Amino acid sequence: MNNYLQRAEKIMQRINTLALISDDDNCINRIFGTNAFIKGRDTIFEWMNDAGLQTTIDNISNVRGKLLSDNANAKTLVIASHYDTVINAGKFDGPLGVLMGLDLLEQIIQAKIKLPFHIELIAFSDEEGVRFHTTYLGSKVVAGLFDKNVLNKKDENGITLQDVIQKLNRRTNQLDKDAIAKNNWLGYFEIHIEQGPVLYEKNIPIAVVNGIAGQQRLEIVFKGMAGHAGTVPMNMRSDALCAASEFILELEQFALEHKKNLVATVGKLNIINAASNVIPGEVVFSLDIRSADENVLSAAYKQIEIICCDVCKKRKIKFEWNLIQESKPILCSKEMNKLLSSSIKKSGYEVIELVSGAGHDAVAISEVSPVAMLFVRCFKGISHNPLENVELNDLAAAIKVSDNFIQELITQNKFII
Amino acid sequence: MNNYLQRAEKIMQRINTLALISDDDNCINRIFGTNAFIKGRDTIFEWMNDAGLQTTIDNISNVRGKLLSDNANAKTLVIASHYDTVINAGKFDGPLGVLMGLDLLEQIIQAKIKLPFHIELIAFSDEEGVRFHTTYLGSKVVAGLFDKNVLNKKDENGITLQDVIQKLNRRTNQLDKDAIAKNNWLGYFEIHIEQGPVLYEKNIPIAVVNGIAGQQRLEIVFKGMAGHAGTVPMNMRSDALCAASEFILELEQFALEHKKNLVATVGKLNIINAASNVIPGEVVFSLDIRSADENVLSAAYKQIEIICCDVCKKRKIKFEWNLIQESKPILCSKEMNKLLSSSIKKSGYEVIELVSGAGHDAVAISEVSPVAMLFVRCFKGISHNPLENVELNDLAAAIKVSDNFIQELITQNKFII
Repeated sequence: MNNYLQRAEKIMQRINTLALISDDDNCINRIFGTNAFIKGRDTIFEWMNDAGLQTTIDNISNVRGKLLSDNANAKTLVIASHYDTVINAGKFDGPLGVLMGLDLLEQIIQAKIKLPFHIELIAFSDEEGVRFHTTYLGSKVVAGLFDKNVLNKKDENGITLQDVIQKLNRRTNQLDKDAIAKNNWLGYFEIHIEQGPVLYEKNIPIAVVNGIAGQQRLEIVFKGMAGHAGTVPMNMRSDALCAASEFILELEQFALEHKKNLVATVGKLNIINAASNVIPGEVVFSLDIRSADENVLSAAYKQIEIICCDVCKKRKIKFEWNLIQESKPILCSKEMNKLLSSSIKKSGYEVIELVSGAGHDAVAISEVSPVAMLFVRCFKGISHNPLENVELNDLAAAIKVSDNFIQELITQNKFII
Repeated sequence: MNNYLQRAEKIMQRINTLALISDDDNCINRIFGTNAFIKGRDTIFEWMNDAGLQTTIDNISNVRGKLLSDNANAKTLVIASHYDTVINAGKFDGPLGVLMGLDLLEQIIQAKIKLPFHIELIAFSDEEGVRFHTTYLGSKVVAGLFDKNVLNKKDENGITLQDVIQKLNRRTNQLDKDAIAKNNWLGYFEIHIEQGPVLYEKNIPIAVVNGIAGQQRLEIVFKGMAGHAGTVPMNMRSDALCAASEFILELEQFALEHKKNLVATVGKLNIINAASNVIPGEVVFSLDIRSADENVLSAAYKQIEIICCDVCKKRKIKFEWNLIQESKPILCSKEMNKLLSSSIKKSGYEVIELVSGAGHDAVAISEVSPVAMLFVRCFKGISHNPLENVELNDLAAAIKVSDNFIQELITQNKFII
């Protein structure tokens, strides 16, 4: 394990170096197109280049380093994650996958392993979508799924994505040339922190990701009747908050009954014209439903709407049910996951399969390639927060498993769709 | 009934005249010490004076009109309500009682009825407490309960109550001289709109008020654990909003089981750092508990705290339970209410007894005198709102009942404590 720990330490040093590259001295902010973003991009470029990869920066500012097979017609395995961050970020979300990928390729180069396929390491430029409220900007370009309308999106200062790309000396009219053609993909592998508490609670360092949950996001309005908290008897009330409370509890119960495949959350709730001595007349709240199983997700959506209907009917509450956003679940490649699981077993760890409730670049890539993800335990499941942390031993475990996984891929080279 | 309707129309005209006296052209605002307040005060002064009452303005700006008994040692019956308003007020809350009282005295004067006791009609200057966040400013002075520390309270512009009183050419060092000595009180009678929906729902014009509810106002904090709405499984959550929802539902159930004597309301609720994709980690909400029965109120307080404890214990939620404000319930005079009920019966109406969930000047006066209140139906129970409305027929019913009540008081003159 000594060798793995040494590699883990080197990865951690690079993660720490990137963490210091921020637009804010007090926290980690590396948003698309900023000075810190450029400095982060160039730092990764140098690392990749120094490792001996054929390194370029594409038109969406993905940093891409190729390690080619002697077989010019071979397909490409992409190993990737992202280097942009949220505001006040942790240091592992994104950089972990990029820098573990770099370490993997350095080992391959050092060991002079003959590759039956090309490997491309990609540091995606924008996964979090903070600046333009987009998702998977970098990986969509690589998957050939970039929507040109997005170029007109403006940030909060009115600057368009088009402007920013041009200011970075990239060409927006060349974006489609940065895609890897669908038939050239061998597969996609991403290492990422779990961003949830399951591994931490179960005391297991790593997990195979089965799929990435689909999501429905709604805004729901309950309208009852406002009234004086002192003068309206309990049995004459039409309290929108009591109705929302009943819905929230029934929602929780329903999601608990389907907990293997479903999470459901009311994260925002506002009482309109709230006052301590006024019975709530109107309540607006969010609903976030996620499942990795498309059938479970759509059945849950319908069932939860029925629950909502029933509560409101019983309580004489009018309601609005507005679907704001929707994404389908994606499944990771069974073939790749089989290899990943056997690599975990071979490395001496318990195999555990998780669904990712958070989105990742693998979502965009899954439309053109088989994808696999390896989750690494993070402290208490905390993410998007300076408290985000990964233990050195867990990094070492992930390195060992990834080594074995890549070795299996090279040896077997048979999981192609 | 014709005569009563005519009187009702005159009262309504005066109510409409007062409603036009506002600091805002678009709504009714008559807050302590403003130009509209002064104009309203002077208008009421003229009406009282013209009616033949010995009219004065006291040092807190109450307008007071006396109709004296020949018996100089007789006690005083006070008929009163207030002439200040909330912001964007209705026109009946306060003025109704003042102007119905004026009409009653005009009838007594016109009929040359010999009084066995003095009657004083008072238009209290500040019941709503909007400007200085006080309660019962006017009636507390008359009850001899004025707290001089309140003189230093500042409005939102930093002007003290002391300043405002002096600007009104009143003397703050004479405020205690405006009190009616405890042994000079015969009783207190206030006519007011219900401000609740019971009479409207039951289709009854008027009600006897049994008592005014005591109130406990709390701020409660639930602390669970925030987390990613996509990555934390349902059974690993400590969702503060789900816990609050369970508490709110159990609270509602408890209050419904005690609905004859209790109302309980969560009117404000805020999720700290709310986002649609974040599991609520902390929720702060208000709790308003009211009952006319002191024992019921204190028992409910304890029981609701136990409910809160149990919910939080079950869900591993930490909670804070902070009592912010507390007032004891007051009971109206049984003797006066007996006469009021028989007057209602004699007038041909069904007798119904209500508890006032809202506070009134009678609360302050009850410390020194027996008090009685007559509630008048208002449209859908709506109050503190431009939609506040009272039908002319209901005004006529209240006049008839009040006439009979005062007649009974004069005839019997025996309900003294």
